[in-house]
Amino acid sequence: MRRLKLVIEYDGSRYHGWQRQTVTSPLAKDRVTIQSILEERLSRITTEKIKLVGAGRTDAGVHALGQVAAFTTKSSLSPEVLKRALNSLCPPDIRILDVEEVSPHFHPRFSAKAKSYLYFIIRTDRPPVFLNSYCWPIRAELDITAMKEAAGYLIGTHDFSAFRASGCSAKTTVRSITELSIEEGEFIPFMGIQIQERFVRFRICGNAFLRYMVRNIIGTLVEIGKGKRPVSSIREILKSGDRKLAGITAPAQGLFLERVYY
Amino acid sequence: MRRLKLVIEYDGSRYHGWQRQTVTSPLAKDRVTIQSILEERLSRITTEKIKLVGAGRTDAGVHALGQVAAFTTKSSLSPEVLKRALNSLCPPDIRILDVEEVSPHFHPRFSAKAKSYLYFIIRTDRPPVFLNSYCWPIRAELDITAMKEAAGYLIGTHDFSAFRASGCSAKTTVRSITELSIEEGEFIPFMGIQIQERFVRFRICGNAFLRYMVRNIIGTLVEIGKGKRPVSSIREILKSGDRKLAGITAPAQGLFLERVYY
Repeated sequence: MRRLKLVIEYDGSRYHGWQRQTVTSPLAKDRVTIQSILEERLSRITTEKIKLVGAGRTDAGVHALGQVAAFTTKSSLSPEVLKRALNSLCPPDIRILDVEEVSPHFHPRFSAKAKSYLYFIIRTDRPPVFLNSYCWPIRAELDITAMKEAAGYLIGTHDFSAFRASGCSAKTTVRSITELSIEEGEFIPFMGIQIQERFVRFRICGNAFLRYMVRNIIGTLVEIGKGKRPVSSIREILKSGDRKLAGITAPAQGLFLERVYY
Repeated sequence: MRRLKLVIEYDGSRYHGWQRQTVTSPLAKDRVTIQSILEERLSRITTEKIKLVGAGRTDAGVHALGQVAAFTTKSSLSPEVLKRALNSLCPPDIRILDVEEVSPHFHPRFSAKAKSYLYFIIRTDRPPVFLNSYCWPIRAELDITAMKEAAGYLIGTHDFSAFRASGCSAKTTVRSITELSIEEGEFIPFMGIQIQERFVRFRICGNAFLRYMVRNIIGTLVEIGKGKRPVSSIREILKSGDRKLAGITAPAQGLFLERVYY
């Protein structure tokens, strides 16, 4: 038996997230997910029933530049051949960047040391047509200095209960954020084209994340940027552990799982 | 009566090109075009029957960063209000960048002094998922030096008969190309992300273009880049005026109408 690791890029727009849906709900069978597509294609290629384990769920509409997943197989196909076969069977919005043989003990989630996410806000109410599915349009003024100051309070090891989704079932809620950077730009690059729209780019890196944690952090920082809450509120929210005190959940389409570190 | 000029950005992927289809064909009514969408929305806003004139047709799948169109109306709506109303009625893949009142004699096509197009080739057989609709994937080696040399022969005023579409009905076929640049890049920028794929970017600028002329030029230059024809063939093709001697038509999705100059 061999263990194979995949690195996957996807556009989450058309999908109900990463995770295969359990078939208890009558709706679930119509809910196409990245995992279900990949498992089906891998099963076809290997003629085995493949179960794929991902490094983390991404919600519906969230994109990935480097999602990681692994599976075990009897197949003797080389990683390169498997990569080509899988790419040729996948729709154009899912692309396999790398296939690699790994130790039988490799687990995409438990072996991960850190993960990074990117989030994009575009400073207009009408996004460029090419970037419509990849950003959160906010035209209102944002006090970026205040947002950066608030972000500073989140760096480090904290109990992030206040920033998790109501349905999140993680046993421990202590996580470490090592980076939360916020940058502004005047022109948003798209291929060789500089589209004239201001944008804000977040990068957040940590050992692990609770469900909706990144989007709840971004949503709260935006409310601080709009002056709806003071910078200091971020410390109170953290201390309270109360989801109701934090801000809104930023929309899925601006979020990219950038990389999983091992 | 006022004359209004629009500058329009669109993602051509879902459309049958710019031009409204004549309703003689039974298929035509199902063929949604950018022009038909805009005319319908403008007619709703002004409560008049609006006829829009564009600076040039773009074919199905071709994109625009700055298409120009104009119409005449009795409406007294300000350009800013009209822009907002039109944007709110248009689908997210059509965006109005600017509305401006112009002279009654302004004609988007006849008043234009020059036009520029961009074309993107990506050097892989599996394009990044986010850029799939915006480039021509070519994995084979391309001799960029040879392509640049060949491009040099096209700059200037020539009879471009050999590069026009078979159905093109333009009366004169002499056109002037003022720029035909070819650049290579190692990383293709997408928002704040550098996607690790080599790419080639063409920029072509001229006083006017025959139907398919840009795509036929790109297709021929690619065949030269692949070594299928010598650099010198470009002069013979030009001189012959024979479409059959030129190369293939490059796919629509890599092409962007960049700007119309007045």
